[in-house]
Amino acid sequence: MSKVVVDLYGSDLGHEEVLKGCYQALDKKLDLNIIVVGNENEIKELIDSRYKDRIDILHAKDKITCNDNPTTAILLKRNSSMIVGLKYLKEHNDINTFVSAGSSAALITCSFLLLEKNNLSNKIAMAPILPTINGNGVVFLDSGANINCSADDLFGFLKLGVDFYRKKFNKQNVRCAFLSNGTESIKGTHEIQEAIKLSQSLENIDLLGQIEARDVLSGKYDVVVTDGFNGNIALKSYEGMAKTIFSLLKKEIKEGGIKAKIGAFLLKPSLKKIASKLDYNKNTGGALILGLKQNVVKAHGSSTKDAITLAILGFI
Amino acid sequence: MSKVVVDLYGSDLGHEEVLKGCYQALDKKLDLNIIVVGNENEIKELIDSRYKDRIDILHAKDKITCNDNPTTAILLKRNSSMIVGLKYLKEHNDINTFVSAGSSAALITCSFLLLEKNNLSNKIAMAPILPTINGNGVVFLDSGANINCSADDLFGFLKLGVDFYRKKFNKQNVRCAFLSNGTESIKGTHEIQEAIKLSQSLENIDLLGQIEARDVLSGKYDVVVTDGFNGNIALKSYEGMAKTIFSLLKKEIKEGGIKAKIGAFLLKPSLKKIASKLDYNKNTGGALILGLKQNVVKAHGSSTKDAITLAILGFI
Repeated sequence: MSKVVVDLYGSDLGHEEVLKGCYQALDKKLDLNIIVVGNENEIKELIDSRYKDRIDILHAKDKITCNDNPTTAILLKRNSSMIVGLKYLKEHNDINTFVSAGSSAALITCSFLLLEKNNLSNKIAMAPILPTINGNGVVFLDSGANINCSADDLFGFLKLGVDFYRKKFNKQNVRCAFLSNGTESIKGTHEIQEAIKLSQSLENIDLLGQIEARDVLSGKYDVVVTDGFNGNIALKSYEGMAKTIFSLLKKEIKEGGIKAKIGAFLLKPSLKKIASKLDYNKNTGGALILGLKQNVVKAHGSSTKDAITLAILGFI
Repeated sequence: MSKVVVDLYGSDLGHEEVLKGCYQALDKKLDLNIIVVGNENEIKELIDSRYKDRIDILHAKDKITCNDNPTTAILLKRNSSMIVGLKYLKEHNDINTFVSAGSSAALITCSFLLLEKNNLSNKIAMAPILPTINGNGVVFLDSGANINCSADDLFGFLKLGVDFYRKKFNKQNVRCAFLSNGTESIKGTHEIQEAIKLSQSLENIDLLGQIEARDVLSGKYDVVVTDGFNGNIALKSYEGMAKTIFSLLKKEIKEGGIKAKIGAFLLKPSLKKIASKLDYNKNTGGALILGLKQNVVKAHGSSTKDAITLAILGFI
């Protein structure tokens, strides 16, 4: 039997959408039980009677919002769903996953402060699986948890990424690279160059050195390592360009006359498929925070019930 | 009368393509003269007789390639077209533009070492004009010249970007922002936060603080400042995502049956327009290196004759 703790608060679509995501997960995995964290008075009446025996409520009267300072939240919001949920996870070794669509910064900080770390890395890292052209996906970390990273931190992220990739995809040989401003060995910061030297000690990995941001999604790499600042820049750039292309397409179709409109209608299923492939939150439910002994999944703030279901089931 | 110096070597498409770009520029601007730099023995016979009285040859028997070390090229390749051209530019104040499709790193290093700097910034910066959803374009610097930048360097880049934007687009009010990992004032590195404080002293700019990489192309900003490492990451990420989307589209069309194929055929003109809008090298001919008293234009290595023409005419 699997047990997952789900933070009901923090989603832009409200806690009822998160609850629907829980129901779908329970329908899909019959040996799953869920502990939802939220205000008991508010939630008790809401839970669908069909699921009542498989959902437990963990009471938390407060919530962390994006306006809360992530570093002080752990002191000032002790009764928030995120902190109550993480503490519960810590005390229960039989539960291995906590899912939250709440503030990334607060989730990273509180997870780091509350949970036990594994011994692969000094720091924890956010590791989404980004879509690739060939559909395999690439583990990209750190995508935003740590701004300043030493060579040793980057080396730690590589170990976390490789470990996660092997478990998730059940493949032994992992093609690894470091995000840089060029592919030549002299490129990149001092930290990147040193991290590559450290990585040469790892066995059974295919160390491919420095790569450029345009090649991350090419399908040639399984794990790409960067610090959280550059990771954030790359991730948001991918998002920005995808948004730009789809906006330009809408504009061109609008202005392109009847021919373009019929073309767009016929091509709609293909375009929808592409948009869905690119939405990594939709595909995986969110990003795992790596470096902890238990799984913490950051679901996107605007996760639909389907994304929540994936976040619950994707990392058990 | 305008004069432009053009490096014939360094383009992936060869020097004949660059020459064709020169002819087109001469056709478009009748008071233009061009000094081409290359091996006289090789070029003399090649030049179309119709343009012979408007093209001068500056002899340079050598060329800088991507395999040359950019920092030692200035000593070891004194007779290369790039260095001979830059030296000629330096000695002729009546010429204000040098165009080269050669190695970016060598062009940046040699321009910095050989040419006179303006007084706006300590460092020079590569500043492409990126496409935006509304078609206006955004000056994005530094896109790759300097890996490590202080707050003062970033402030200098802002001054360079604003100055260039005003001259290029003839608009006084400039909307400026710094690339960061979030929009809140606490976000970004120490250097970014300090650069924003320094920028508050500038008059007539609309200082919009930190922005995320997904918003650079939104059309809400005229000048976006970053260091050359993050600039490179963002630029290559935009490129990578555009490539990914067009590759996925091709695949979907191929696998999507007759309906998708007809749709693609009808939508082709719109898709081509979008691809062309996104290709900033095609739209502007290249990126200007800012911070110098004279213009140095880095044309893309794979510039067609049309891109070379734009590079020659776009920054006179």
